[in-house]
Formats: sequence, structure tokens, C-alpha cells
Amino acid sequence: MPENNAAILTIGDELLIGQITDTNSVWIGQQMDNMGWRIGAKETVRDSVPVIVEALTRLMHQHQVVIVTGGLGPTADDKTLEAMSVFFQKPLVLFPEVEAKIRQYFAARGKSVSEQHRKQFYLPEGTDVLSNEVGTAPGMHMSRKGTHFYFTPGVPVELRYIFQKHIRPQVEAWNSGSVVQSHLFTAGIGETAVVDLLGDGLHNWPSFLGISFLPYLGGVRLRLTAQDSDGVRNRTLVDQVRKDLIKRLGSHFVSSELGQWNEIIQKMMLEQKLTLATAESCTGGYIASQITHVAGSSGYFKGSVVSYANEVKTQVLGVRKETIQNHGAVSRPCAEEMLTGLLGVIDADIGIAVTGIAGPGGGSAEKPVGTVFVAVGDGSVMNVERFNYRSSRHGIIEYTYHQAMYMVYKFLSDQ
Amino acid sequence: MPENNAAILTIGDELLIGQITDTNSVWIGQQMDNMGWRIGAKETVRDSVPVIVEALTRLMHQHQVVIVTGGLGPTADDKTLEAMSVFFQKPLVLFPEVEAKIRQYFAARGKSVSEQHRKQFYLPEGTDVLSNEVGTAPGMHMSRKGTHFYFTPGVPVELRYIFQKHIRPQVEAWNSGSVVQSHLFTAGIGETAVVDLLGDGLHNWPSFLGISFLPYLGGVRLRLTAQDSDGVRNRTLVDQVRKDLIKRLGSHFVSSELGQWNEIIQKMMLEQKLTLATAESCTGGYIASQITHVAGSSGYFKGSVVSYANEVKTQVLGVRKETIQNHGAVSRPCAEEMLTGLLGVIDADIGIAVTGIAGPGGGSAEKPVGTVFVAVGDGSVMNVERFNYRSSRHGIIEYTYHQAMYMVYKFLSDQ
Repeated sequence: MPENNAAILTIGDELLIGQITDTNSVWIGQQMDNMGWRIGAKETVRDSVPVIVEALTRLMHQHQVVIVTGGLGPTADDKTLEAMSVFFQKPLVLFPEVEAKIRQYFAARGKSVSEQHRKQFYLPEGTDVLSNEVGTAPGMHMSRKGTHFYFTPGVPVELRYIFQKHIRPQVEAWNSGSVVQSHLFTAGIGETAVVDLLGDGLHNWPSFLGISFLPYLGGVRLRLTAQDSDGVRNRTLVDQVRKDLIKRLGSHFVSSELGQWNEIIQKMMLEQKLTLATAESCTGGYIASQITHVAGSSGYFKGSVVSYANEVKTQVLGVRKETIQNHGAVSRPCAEEMLTGLLGVIDADIGIAVTGIAGPGGGSAEKPVGTVFVAVGDGSVMNVERFNYRSSRHGIIEYTYHQAMYMVYKFLSDQ
Repeated sequence: MPENNAAILTIGDELLIGQITDTNSVWIGQQMDNMGWRIGAKETVRDSVPVIVEALTRLMHQHQVVIVTGGLGPTADDKTLEAMSVFFQKPLVLFPEVEAKIRQYFAARGKSVSEQHRKQFYLPEGTDVLSNEVGTAPGMHMSRKGTHFYFTPGVPVELRYIFQKHIRPQVEAWNSGSVVQSHLFTAGIGETAVVDLLGDGLHNWPSFLGISFLPYLGGVRLRLTAQDSDGVRNRTLVDQVRKDLIKRLGSHFVSSELGQWNEIIQKMMLEQKLTLATAESCTGGYIASQITHVAGSSGYFKGSVVSYANEVKTQVLGVRKETIQNHGAVSRPCAEEMLTGLLGVIDADIGIAVTGIAGPGGGSAEKPVGTVFVAVGDGSVMNVERFNYRSSRHGIIEYTYHQAMYMVYKFLSDQ
């Protein structure tokens, strides 16, 4: 069995039919990956005892840790407890402390425990209970044949609570101390261009040092991994290679954290005590919503004018009618006037203005679908760029968001 | 093997470590489910020939159709073609028509075919090529032991193109003709309340008629499925039960289409030739971005003022400072004034105004995190509701969006 190999199993009919998007396994994958665990498999199965048991059995043979979410709810659909009982060959027994916790949870909300919820008092005999302060179903830990199994509810906030409080400290401790990972987050550059920039540096490293190229919209994440018995040597080596890479990447190196643009920009804006506003046409509020997705964004984000209709561009942002008549709403002058207007309407230090054609309709030969103008600036300096994306409507909006944030990043870095 | 049983296999290291969210399998699951296929398993594996071969072998035994995405790119990481060669015991051979297509694709973009991309000319001998007009790697169809395997690139736009053009017509034809499905989309009601409303009607149906309750944020989707040899009888029966259910659900029945709120509201607004605008505080532009996610939304959506900072509420929307001082920014009077102000600033028929506390900070005993006021109305009629959500920051924003759209729906339905 390879070391540090983990699997994720998500349980629920609703995940199979696309009723809900499985964000849990994405999140768990990120957390485990950042701790140096390798995710060997990810599976989704339906709420069925034999199917769950079969999956647990199979995953056990190839992984040291299996993280299971879902199927712990109070309804008859939920089969995970039953499947655990079969798989671990342990009866479901009353856990008085779990019962007390659940009764208390309902009492605090002025409710009594329903018949259905009593099911949650009974867990497989001998399980380690992982307390859940944000919901009723507790997490659980059990082992079989040397593999550690963790079970959590599928409700994202409960999963995350239980993972951070209980699972993380345990799996972190088991991870062999010699794995060293380091991330480099680039922007404004594709995978091929990164490889070109790194040049022959790539081939001169010892074999236990690996580099992965993980493209994302608008850039590439580089991950350095050193896995060897000598942890100290690894750290030194990784640090050394990192420095070399950062030099080679130049201005395309953005961050060493596995951050998202909204988090990176928030950190920079708060540090520099600056405020931001957006004027959005084709992105329709997407940039603002991504920015405000992050807790604490009210510390720097003032607001937005989503000027989807041209009359909002003229009446609210003060774009001149002649500008739209002469150049079109999707034009450099319009983006510039939107930005100037925005900073007049909302008192922010820096503004982003975006106008473009997200499609699928509205394109022309001169300005096809995917043509986007982004303006970023303060009262005195303004950078405007034109982009031509070939993508779906949503892809164009997503690219524009990344590009706009990268332009803010460059603007802030140049100050 | 149960009939109409399908599996989804997604391939790629980046999916396992949470680098990207697997939206493909969600989308495929929805499409297959809507055609009456049952999704029996969903798996993600890494780019490794033995691992892919093992997964294909296992899934073959339990499913009639296996849809595989990813790993068809030009780089050395991509192993799907090699795994297909091993699994189907067919060598990779040159497909001249594929080569011609790819050369043409690059020529149309003024580029020549790179060394790397030549890999994509070679496919397993005997495969059915599924043409890809939006990218380079074609889709493929092959069978083994009665199971149909479809392979598509992992790029969402390419997957969707190949699925709609090639895979859908084939799997639709294989599906036994007697499956009838019907959806009822409810809102403002939870699963337990729906069951109560339906009452004993649930128990009086023939056994081949199934009903599923699929909760989503703010409502429940009911799915009726009749699976029997007699297609005509099924249709009649499902129609009959539907009518009964709609009567019982009353005003909570929203739509029979598997629609999203943004699509439902767009259809209603365009039909009624009305326009919409939003004033958003705690949702930070999320409502506008969800609305404009749908192509054609410019036909009714005028724009938004995201008044994240209080000064934007007062300066742009004209909320009185005394209102904020006396009642707070998160209050019924503030929501009302935001709506009135919005309809003054943006000339729309109907407005949505939202103010609340998405958290995690900013709550108080009187107004805890999750307190949200939503106002919906035109110039003369205004409905304001207070909500108290217990959820994460993102959950509160998402709930508010659903609730705001439901309020617009009720407003439009009452006219």
C-alpha cells in the first residue's frame, strides 16, 4: 500500500442524479492534499447497505484513511449506520452521551426530539464519537485491517466542523513527517508557457522531488512535493527550488498560498487599507458576488453598479450616450467611462469596470462573443485591456472575473 | 443487471485533490436522470492506466452504460486512450479523418498542430468516433460484454456538445420505452410538510409507480416514475396522479419543469413583458449574477445596485441616514427604502431589495447572523419578509436568493 493514501466516499442518491453538486469531496480533497495526503480514489454511491459495504471493503484494501460523508440523517433513506454495522460487524447500540447531546441540541432550539431523530442515538458499538456542535448527527471513527474510517454527516458545515476539530489533528499526526509540499500560484500564463519559463531547471532535481502543473482558469498552480526519509533535507531542497522557480516565473508568480483570487485581493486591500467597487455589465454582478463570498469583505468592498441595460450605464454611471452610439457599449471608451462614473457614484479607492459580450447572442464579426473590456484604476491611473475569450457564457464570465482580479493584483503590486 | 443502469467515471488527478469541482458528473447525472436512467455509481480516479482499467472492468459488470470523461488531452498526464487500448484489447491506430479534423481545427485558428497534439490522432482500433466541433479530442463509443462505453474530453463545453449530439440520441433510444417520468417543483415548503400535504394519496398507487422527494434549497422536487411494460397506461396514470398532487400542493406547486429559479422567473418576466432590478446588501450581487447566468436575461434584467457599504445605501439608493441610525441597516424600513430608492435609480417594473447579516460576524442577540429582510414590489405594492436562516455564510446567501426569487414568483402570480 503506498503511504499517505486516502479515499473519499460520498453517499447519497441526490449526488448521483446531479440534484446537488458534491462540494464536500472537493473540499476534503483540498484539505488532505494540502496536508500531503494523496487522494487515491473518490466515489459516490447510493443509499444502499450492500452498495456502501462493497465500497468500504474495496477502499479499505488500498487506502490508509477513508473519509465517508452522508447518509447519517434521521430519515429511512439514510443507510450509513446500518452499513457500518454490517461492515464492522458491530451492532447498533444506544450511546447515552449522544442522546443527551441531541436532546440538548433540540431543547436549545425550543423543540423536542422527533421520533425520527431517535435513530441517531444508536451507533455501531465501540465507535469513537466525534462531537458535532453544529448539528445532530455526530461524526465517527473506526478502524479495520489497519485502515482508519471517518464518517461525517453530508451537511457541509457539519462535515467541515468535524473535519477541522477531529479528523485533521489525527490524520496530520499519521502523515509521515518527511513529506514536504510547497505551492506556487501563477497567473496570466498557461501550462506550456510555464514549462518554457522553467526551462531545463525541471530536469536537474533528485528523483524524490516531484513537480505538478495544475492549470486553473487564468493560470497554473505548481506543486512541489518531496517524499523521502530525510525531512530536513527535503525542506531545504524544496525551499531552494522554490526560490529558483519564483525567480524564473517573474511577475507571473502571485502567491504561495493555495488561495483564491477573492482571498488574495482581500488580504492585499486590507493590508494597504484601500477600498474597491465594481461596475459590471456582462459579468452581471458575478465579480461582486465572488468578492463578497469571503467573510470580512465588507472591510474593503463598497459595492457595485451592475449596469446590464445601457440606460443604467448612462443614467447611473454617467456614460455618455454618444460614447455608446459611436463605439458601442462593448468598447474601450465605454469601459473607461464606466470606471470614471463608478468612482464618482461610489466613493472607493479602486474600481473595476467590465463590459463585454457573454453570449451566446450579441456577437458580430468585429466584436465576436467573448469580447470583453476590463478597466481597473483609481482616479488618476487607469489600465484597460481587451480580451477575446472562446468559451461558453459562463466560461467567459468566469475568465473575466479572474482577469479582472489579476489586473487589480498587478495594479496593487505596481503601487 | 437492473435495467437502465448507468455509471459515470471521471478521470483526472485535479479532480481528486479538489483542484477543480467536478461539474461534469453533476451535469451528466441530471441528463441521464431526466431520461429515466438510474445512476448506479459515480467514481473519480486518477490518471493511471491500471487504475482506469480496474474501474472500467468493475463498472462494466453492473451497468449498461458507462460514461467516462477526462484524460483525453494531449499531454503525457492523460492516460485514457492507453487505458482504453488495454481494456478493449485494441491497439491505438491512426484515424486519418480525426487527424484531418484536428489539423483543420488548428488551421482555422491560424496555428499548426503541435507535436503533443499528434497523440490525439491515434485511437483504439474499431472505436466509433463521436465528432467534436468545439475542441480537438473526439468522443468515442465502444462496447464490451453488452455494456456501452462513451468517452469524452473533460472540458465541460466539449463534453456537453458530444453528449447532446451523439450520446443522448443513442442512450435515449436504448431506454425501455415504457418509463414515464414527471416532475413537480415546489417552493416555500419542506419535505415533511409536502408528505403531510399529500396525505394518504401516497399509499393508494400501484406498485410500479414510484415517487421520490428530492429536497433543494427552499423546496422539494417530486419525481413520479412509472416503469412497466404498458407505456400508454403509465402516461395516463402519471397524468392522473400529477393532477391530484398539484391540487394537494396548492400554491406550493411552482413548475413542472426541472427548472432553476432564474429560468422560471426569466420565462415569466418575458411573457409578462416586465423588467427587474435588484438592490443587494448581504447577497453582494449574487442574485444579479444568478439572474444574468441565463442567456437572454438582458431581455428583462436592467441591473443592480450592490450597496454593501451603508454609504452606498444612502448616497446611491437614497436610504435616509435616520433610518439606518434608528432601525439599523438590517431592518424592514431599510429594505423598504432600498426598494423605493432602487426603482427611482433604475427604471424597472419590479425590484428586489435585500439586507441582512450573512456572517460569520456582525450578529447580535436581537438580530443574529442569518437575519435577512427581503422586499419585493413595484412602485405601488411592496411585500417585505423577515427570514432567520441558520446556515453558513454561503448558505444564507443561497437561501436568500431562492427566497427572493420565490417572492418575485408569488408577486407575478398574484397579478
